[in-house]
Amino acid sequence: MKITVINGPNINMLGKRETNYYGDKTLEQINSMISELAAVLCVKVDFFQSNSEGEIIDCIHNTDSDGMLINPAAYSHTSIAIRDAISSVTIPAVEVHLSNIFGRDEFRHHSYVAPACIGQISGFGAGSYLLGLRALVEHIKGKKG
Amino acid sequence: MKITVINGPNINMLGKRETNYYGDKTLEQINSMISELAAVLCVKVDFFQSNSEGEIIDCIHNTDSDGMLINPAAYSHTSIAIRDAISSVTIPAVEVHLSNIFGRDEFRHHSYVAPACIGQISGFGAGSYLLGLRALVEHIKGKKG
Amino acid sequence: MKITVINGPNINMLGKRETNYYGDKTLEQINSMISELAAVLCVKVDFFQSNSEGEIIDCIHNTDSDGMLINPAAYSHTSIAIRDAISSVTIPAVEVHLSNIFGRDEFRHHSYVAPACIGQISGFGAGSYLLGLRALVEHIKGKKG
Amino acid sequence: MKITVINGPNINMLGKRETNYYGDKTLEQINSMISELAAVLCVKVDFFQSNSEGEIIDCIHNTDSDGMLINPAAYSHTSIAIRDAISSVTIPAVEVHLSNIFGRDEFRHHSYVAPACIGQISGFGAGSYLLGLRALVEHIKGKKG
Amino acid sequence: MKITVINGPNINMLGKRETNYYGDKTLEQINSMISELAAVLCVKVDFFQSNSEGEIIDCIHNTDSDGMLINPAAYSHTSIAIRDAISSVTIPAVEVHLSNIFGRDEFRHHSYVAPACIGQISGFGAGSYLLGLRALVEHIKGKKG
Amino acid sequence: MKITVINGPNINMLGKRETNYYGDKTLEQINSMISELAAVLCVKVDFFQSNSEGEIIDCIHNTDSDGMLINPAAYSHTSIAIRDAISSVTIPAVEVHLSNIFGRDEFRHHSYVAPACIGQISGFGAGSYLLGLRALVEHIKGKKG
Amino acid sequence: MKITVINGPNINMLGKRETNYYGDKTLEQINSMISELAAVLCVKVDFFQSNSEGEIIDCIHNTDSDGMLINPAAYSHTSIAIRDAISSVTIPAVEVHLSNIFGRDEFRHHSYVAPACIGQISGFGAGSYLLGLRALVEHIKGKKG
Amino acid sequence: MKITVINGPNINMLGKRETNYYGDKTLEQINSMISELAAVLCVKVDFFQSNSEGEIIDCIHNTDSDGMLINPAAYSHTSIAIRDAISSVTIPAVEVHLSNIFGRDEFRHHSYVAPACIGQISGFGAGSYLLGLRALVEHIKGKKG
Amino acid sequence: MKITVINGPNINMLGKRETNYYGDKTLEQINSMISELAAVLCVKVDFFQSNSEGEIIDCIHNTDSDGMLINPAAYSHTSIAIRDAISSVTIPAVEVHLSNIFGRDEFRHHSYVAPACIGQISGFGAGSYLLGLRALVEHIKGKKG
Amino acid sequence: MKITVINGPNINMLGKRETNYYGDKTLEQINSMISELAAVLCVKVDFFQSNSEGEIIDCIHNTDSDGMLINPAAYSHTSIAIRDAISSVTIPAVEVHLSNIFGRDEFRHHSYVAPACIGQISGFGAGSYLLGLRALVEHIKGKKG
Amino acid sequence: MKITVINGPNINMLGKRETNYYGDKTLEQINSMISELAAVLCVKVDFFQSNSEGEIIDCIHNTDSDGMLINPAAYSHTSIAIRDAISSVTIPAVEVHLSNIFGRDEFRHHSYVAPACIGQISGFGAGSYLLGLRALVEHIKGKKG
Amino acid sequence: MKITVINGPNINMLGKRETNYYGDKTLEQINSMISELAAVLCVKVDFFQSNSEGEIIDCIHNTDSDGMLINPAAYSHTSIAIRDAISSVTIPAVEVHLSNIFGRDEFRHHSYVAPACIGQISGFGAGSYLLGLRALVEHIKGKKG
Repeated sequence: MKITVINGPNINMLGKRETNYYGDKTLEQINSMISELAAVLCVKVDFFQSNSEGEIIDCIHNTDSDGMLINPAAYSHTSIAIRDAISSVTIPAVEVHLSNIFGRDEFRHHSYVAPACIGQISGFGAGSYLLGLRALVEHIKGKKG
Repeated sequence: MKITVINGPNINMLGKRETNYYGDKTLEQINSMISELAAVLCVKVDFFQSNSEGEIIDCIHNTDSDGMLINPAAYSHTSIAIRDAISSVTIPAVEVHLSNIFGRDEFRHHSYVAPACIGQISGFGAGSYLLGLRALVEHIKGKKG
Repeated sequence: MKITVINGPNINMLGKRETNYYGDKTLEQINSMISELAAVLCVKVDFFQSNSEGEIIDCIHNTDSDGMLINPAAYSHTSIAIRDAISSVTIPAVEVHLSNIFGRDEFRHHSYVAPACIGQISGFGAGSYLLGLRALVEHIKGKKG
Repeated sequence: MKITVINGPNINMLGKRETNYYGDKTLEQINSMISELAAVLCVKVDFFQSNSEGEIIDCIHNTDSDGMLINPAAYSHTSIAIRDAISSVTIPAVEVHLSNIFGRDEFRHHSYVAPACIGQISGFGAGSYLLGLRALVEHIKGKKG
Repeated sequence: MKITVINGPNINMLGKRETNYYGDKTLEQINSMISELAAVLCVKVDFFQSNSEGEIIDCIHNTDSDGMLINPAAYSHTSIAIRDAISSVTIPAVEVHLSNIFGRDEFRHHSYVAPACIGQISGFGAGSYLLGLRALVEHIKGKKG
Repeated sequence: MKITVINGPNINMLGKRETNYYGDKTLEQINSMISELAAVLCVKVDFFQSNSEGEIIDCIHNTDSDGMLINPAAYSHTSIAIRDAISSVTIPAVEVHLSNIFGRDEFRHHSYVAPACIGQISGFGAGSYLLGLRALVEHIKGKKG
Repeated sequence: MKITVINGPNINMLGKRETNYYGDKTLEQINSMISELAAVLCVKVDFFQSNSEGEIIDCIHNTDSDGMLINPAAYSHTSIAIRDAISSVTIPAVEVHLSNIFGRDEFRHHSYVAPACIGQISGFGAGSYLLGLRALVEHIKGKKG
Repeated sequence: MKITVINGPNINMLGKRETNYYGDKTLEQINSMISELAAVLCVKVDFFQSNSEGEIIDCIHNTDSDGMLINPAAYSHTSIAIRDAISSVTIPAVEVHLSNIFGRDEFRHHSYVAPACIGQISGFGAGSYLLGLRALVEHIKGKKG
Repeated sequence: MKITVINGPNINMLGKRETNYYGDKTLEQINSMISELAAVLCVKVDFFQSNSEGEIIDCIHNTDSDGMLINPAAYSHTSIAIRDAISSVTIPAVEVHLSNIFGRDEFRHHSYVAPACIGQISGFGAGSYLLGLRALVEHIKGKKG
Repeated sequence: MKITVINGPNINMLGKRETNYYGDKTLEQINSMISELAAVLCVKVDFFQSNSEGEIIDCIHNTDSDGMLINPAAYSHTSIAIRDAISSVTIPAVEVHLSNIFGRDEFRHHSYVAPACIGQISGFGAGSYLLGLRALVEHIKGKKG
Repeated sequence: MKITVINGPNINMLGKRETNYYGDKTLEQINSMISELAAVLCVKVDFFQSNSEGEIIDCIHNTDSDGMLINPAAYSHTSIAIRDAISSVTIPAVEVHLSNIFGRDEFRHHSYVAPACIGQISGFGAGSYLLGLRALVEHIKGKKG
Repeated sequence: MKITVINGPNINMLGKRETNYYGDKTLEQINSMISELAAVLCVKVDFFQSNSEGEIIDCIHNTDSDGMLINPAAYSHTSIAIRDAISSVTIPAVEVHLSNIFGRDEFRHHSYVAPACIGQISGFGAGSYLLGLRALVEHIKGKKG
C-alpha cells in the first residue's frame, strides 16, 4: 500500500512562521514523523509540496498511490479546482489541517475540498497528519478487506 | 489518566438509523472499540450519552477526568451553551463526528462547539472516536510531559 | 393502530397565554378533542408534553406507536436534534402548529423539523391537531393497505 | 355553503409529471375526491385551474363562494399579487400543497401567499386538499355559528 | 397630447379592500379625478387595468400615447418583464403608488419597475395619480418645448 | 398655512455639480419656483438648508409651520435621527428627491426617512419640490377640511 | 422531427428597442433565419411568442413537438412556474438568450429555468437561437440514435 | 413582593471560569449580594439555576412570584422557547448579563429573549443583577402603585 | 466625583413625542430625577444634549468629569465616530436607552457605541438613567477603591 | 483564421471521471471533433490545456490567434485573474462548459469569466465546444465582414 | 498651488488615544510634518479639523484650494454626504488613513468616500498624509502640465 | 537596503490593455521610474512578475530583501495563500494598486492580502508604486533606526 502526502501553499515555511498557529516543527520533521508511523503501519509514503494550485492538481492526477493525505492549506477555502481534481480520481483522500480552522478567521471555517474527501482532521498540529494517515490506511484496508 | 466520552442527541440510536450516514455499528459496539484502544493506551474511560443539552453541560461541569472526547451531534450546530461549558472547565476536549459534516446539509458545516476544543475529526465513522482518543491522550501527555 | 401526540415547549400553558395567537382552549381540552376523533377513527392515542428538547427526543426514540403527531412549537425553528430524532426512527410523523407560522416573526417561518415529517399543517388552532391526526392515520393506512 | 377550489400553474399536468413529488393522481381524480368529501360535508364546490397569475387573481375577485381552497403551486413563492388578491376579498382561504415544500428546493420553503390565508397544509398529496376542505368548512362554520 | 393610465393587479378592487392602506375611493372615482385634471391640463387620457402581467406588457407595447402613468401594484416588486417592456418603447413613464411603499412590508420597498421610469410617487392615495399626471405632462412638454 | 422647505447636504451646490443627475437649476432658482407655486396655492413658505444632520433635526423640532417639504439628500440613506425627528413632531412631512433614487447606486434605493413621511416623490428634478408642495398642501387641507 | 420555438416577454419588440443589448434584427427576421437552418437540418419548426407567463406555460403543456427552443427573457429570472412546466413534460428544452446575461444587472445572472433545460446559450444575439437549434436537434438525435 | 432569580447555563461555574469576562465572584456570592439588596428593598427572593432549557421554562411556568430576574446566558442567543415561556406568563421579567454582550462574538449581540422582557442590562458583572433587581422592583411598584 | 450626562438627538423632545415608546416625562423632569439621585450618591452631575453628532463628540473630548452617562439615541445605530470618541478618552461610559431596543425595528437592535462602554441598560424609561448612574458610580468607585 | 482552444483544470481527466456530469469522451476525442468541424469551417485550431491558473493566463497573453474558445472549468467560479487576462487582450472569447452549470452546486452558477466573453454555452457535453466554435467563427466573420 | 488638509472626527485627539492603532504623534505634530513637506514641494497648505459631518461638508464646499487631502476617519464608513460633497466640487481629493483599515473591524474595511477620490492611502501613520500630499501634488501637476 | 517589487497577474500587459483603468505606461516604464526613485533613496530594487499564484508565493518565500512592494492585482481579491505567504516571512510588505479599487466592481473592494501588509495605496497609477516605495523605505528605516 502506498500513500501520497500532499502539502499546499506555505507549508514549506513551517517552523519558520506564525508558530502560535502551527507549532515549531519544520515540514521535514513532520515528514520524518509520518515516515516512522508509515513504517509501523507497513505502508509506503511519498511526499509532495507545492505552492501552486495547478501543480497540486497535476500531482493528484498523476499519483499511482492507494490514498492521498492532503493539507490544502489556504487553498481549502478557495479552490474548487482541487476539489474537482480529487473527485476526478478514484483514490480516497483525507484532509488535514495543523490548526483548528474553526478557531481562526471566519473565511477559514469553510472548506471547498472537504466534501471530496472521506473526512477532515484539524487542530492537532503535526499530529493531524499522523491521525490522518491512520484514518486513511484504516479506510483503504476496510475497502480492500 | 481518565477520559470521559460524551455523546449527544440521537447517538443512542446508532446502528438503528440512517446507516448510509453513520454506519451500522451500535453505540455499545463503538464504546467497546474505544475501551479496547484505551486499554492499549493505558487510560481509563467512562461513557456518557444524553439527548438533553442541559445534561451534557452538567456532565462537562462535573467530570473529574483529564480530557473529554465529545460528539455533540446536532448540538454542534446550535448550542452556544455547550461551547461555553467546555470553556468553563480546564479540561481539554476533542470534537468528533461520525459523518463528514462538510458533505451534508449546509447548516451542518458550522460548529459552535469546535472553537472551544483542541481540534475536530469528522467523517471516519466509529474510527473518528478512536482517532480522537489518540489525539486527546497525545495532547494531555504533551502538556504533562 | 396507536398514535403518539407530542407537544413541545409552552404548549402546557395553552389557554392561559397569548390567546390572540393560539386560541383559548387548554391542552387538556385539545387532548379531549383528539381522543374523540381518535375513537371515531378507531385508533389509540397517548399524549406527551415536555418543555425539554432532550425529553422530546427521548420520547420519539422510545415510542412504540405507529405514528407521531408532533407540535414542536418553538423548537421547530431551532432544533436540528429533534429533526434527527424523527429521522432516526421508522415511524411516520406529521408536524402541526396552532398558529399560521408564516403570519408571525420572520424567524418562525422556517422549520428544521418539517423535512423529517410527511407534511405540515399550520394555522387552524386546535383544528390543526385534528387534521394532522386524520392525515397521519390516512398515511399509515395507505402504507399498510 | 359554497367553496371554490383554485389550482395554479402546472396542476393540470398532475399524474403526468414528476410523480415522485406529486403522486400519480390526475387533477380530475383529485377533483372527484374533493366532490365526494364536499357531499359528505354538505357544501357545494366549483373548480378553477389556470396557469396564468392574472386569471387566478380574476377568479379570486369574482368568486361568490364562502371560502377558497387554493394551491398556488409555483406562484406561492413568487406572487405578491395573488397574496394581495386574497387580502382584497373578504372570503377566507386555505393554502394547500401536494408535496412537502420544506423538503424541496430552498426557494420553495417560502410562501408569499400563506400570510393572507388562515393556514397552510402541505405534503399529503391529494389528501392535502381533503384536509384543507375540512379546515375551511370548519372555519366558516365557526365564524357563522 | 395623450396619456395612458395603466393599473396593475387588484387595483380594480379599490375602495372594496384594505382601506387603511389605499383609501376608500374606487378605481372609477380615481379615473374621474384623473379625467378632470387632464381636461384642465388639456391632455387626453385613456385607461387600462389588468391583473395579468402579460396583458400589461401588451398594453405598454401597443399604446400610441405620449406618456404612461403606471401603478404596477404588486408587480413593481416582482416583474422584470414590465420593466423591460417600458424600456422597449420610447414613451416616458411615471410610476405611482397609492400607499407609502417604504412604510409597509420589507419586500414592498424595492421596485424593479422604477429604474425604467422618469420617477416615482408614492403615498398620496388617489393624489399620487394626479401628481404623476402633472409630472408626466410637464416632462413631455419639457422635451417637446 | 405655512410650509417649511428643508434641504439637506450638498443641495446648496445645485447647478454647480453633477448636472446629469440633478439638472442645472440652482437652489435659489428652485426656491423661486416653489415660492411662485406657493403664492398660487395661497400658502406661506420659508426655506432652510444645512449640511449638518443636527441642524436639520433642530429645524424640524423648532418649526411652527403646518407641513414640511424635505429633501434629506444623502441623509435619507443613513439618518435614523432625522426619521425620529420627524416622528417626534406632529407636523406632516413629504420627502422629495431630485434624481430617481432607484436608478442610482444600490445604497441610494433605501430611505430611513420615508416611513416617517406621508409619501415620497423622486426623479423629477426641481419638479419634485413642486409636486411635493401640492401633495403636502392637499394633505393638510384634507385633514383640516 | 418538430421543434417549437418559444419566446417570452418583449421579444416581439426586437429590433425596435435597446439595440445595444439585443441587436437590430426583428423577431420575424430571426424566425426566418431559424427556418432556414431548420430546413438545412431537415426539421420542422413552429413559432410561439407571448408576453404572458401563463400562455407560455400553456404552450409548453400543449406542444406535440420533439423539442423546445426557449428564450424566457425576463421570466428566466423570476418564473418558477415555467421551470416546473418544462419539468412537467418529457420534451427536451434548450434555453437561449440574445444578450450575455452575466454582463448585465446582477439579477439577470440567475436563471430559474436553466436547471430544467439541457443547457443554456447566451450572448450571441440571433445566433443564440441558431446554436440552440443545432444543440437541440443533436440532442434529440443522440437520444433517438 | 417576591422575585425569582433565574440563571441559565454555566452560571453555576462562575468564579471558576473565564474570569476576564465574568469576574471572580461565585454564584453563591452574587446570590448573597442580591439577598442583601432585596432585604433593603423589602422584597423576598428565591433562586433558581439550571443548565437545561426545559427546566428554565418549567421554572418560569411554575413561579408564583411577582417578577423574574433572568440571566439566560448562552440561551439568550438561541432560545425562542424561553422567550415564548416569558410571554406565556403575566409576570414581568428583566434580562441581565454579566458581560457586555456587544463587546464579544457577533453571535452574542442578538437576544431572542429580550423582546419578551421589560428591558436588558449587560456589562456590569454581579452589579447587573443588583441593577436589574432595582429596575424590576421599581417596575412592579409602578404598576401596582 | 463628577458625571456628565450626555443625550443625543431628539431627546430634547421627550414627553412631547411618541409616548408609547418613551414615556411622558420631559428631559427636564428626567434631569431632576438624576440630580436627586446624584445628591444621594454624593456625586456632581452636569447635563448636555445635542442633536449634532459632532457636538456630542466635542462634548466627550472636552469633559473633565469622572464618568459619562450617555444616551446616544438614534446615533447608537449609525455612529462609529461617537464610538471612537468614547474610546479616545480614558473616562468610563455607560450607554442607556429609554425604550427596549430589542423590541423595536431590526435596525435598532444593533449598537456601534456599546462596545466602547462598560455596559448597556435599555427599556426602563427614565429609570434607565438612574440605573446607569448607579452602575457608573459603582464602577468608578470600584476602580478607585 | 486561427482559434485557440483553452481548457482549464481537470479537463485532461475527461472520460476518466464523473461521467454522469461530463460524458465519457476523452479530451483527445473532443479535440478531434473540434478539428473536424474546424476543417469544415476552414479555420485553424490549436489546443492548450493546463491545470494552472497562471499558465492559462500566460497562454491568453501569448496567443496570436483570432479568437479563444475557453472552458475555464472550476476557475470560472473563482478566477478574477483569468477574467482580467481576457480583458487585457483584444481577441474575442467564448466560454463553454460541458455540464449545465445551473444544475449543479450553487457556487457553480456564478462565472467571473463570462462578462469578459462574448457569450457562454453550457450543458451540451462535447457539443458545447462545437457550438462555441461556430459562434466564435461567426462572430469574427461578422466583425471582419 | 494650495492644498486643504481636512481631518474628521477624533483626529484632534491623536497622540492622546489608542496609540497602538494611530501612533503617538499629535495632530499638531503631523501638521508640522505636512507643512515641512509642503514647503519642499512648494505648495501652500491650510488645515481644517472638525468632528461634525456638516462642517466638513461646508469646508469642502467653501475651499478655494487646488486639492484636498482628507482623512474622514469614522465618517469614511458611514457618510454618503461627504462622498457627495467631494463629487460636488471640481477639486481633486486623496483619502488617507493612519491605520490599515483592512486590519481592523469588518465595518472599517468599507469606504463610502473613496470612490469620489483619486485614490486611498492607509496604514502608514502620519506617513499616510505625507504620501497623500505627494500623490495629490503630482496629480494636480499632471493635469496642469 | 534591498526591496523586491512583486507584480501579479496581467501586470505584464500594462500599457497594452484597458488604459482607462491602468494608464498607458508599460511595466518596463514603471520599473524604470521605480529604479530612478530607488537610486534617489539609496536602495536596491529587484523586480518580479508572474501570472501564477504559486510562483508569487515562491518569490515571497525566497526573497532575501528587506521589504516587499507588492501589487497582487486580481489575486488581492481571491488569494488567502498569498496573504499567508506574506505572514510566513518576517519581511514588511506594502500593497499597491494602479486603479482605485473602491471605484470598480464590488468584488474588487475587498483585499485578502492587505491585512498582512503594513498598508495599502491605490488609485495613483504608476505613482502608487513610487509612493509605496517611499512608505516601505521609511518604515524599514523607522524600525532599524
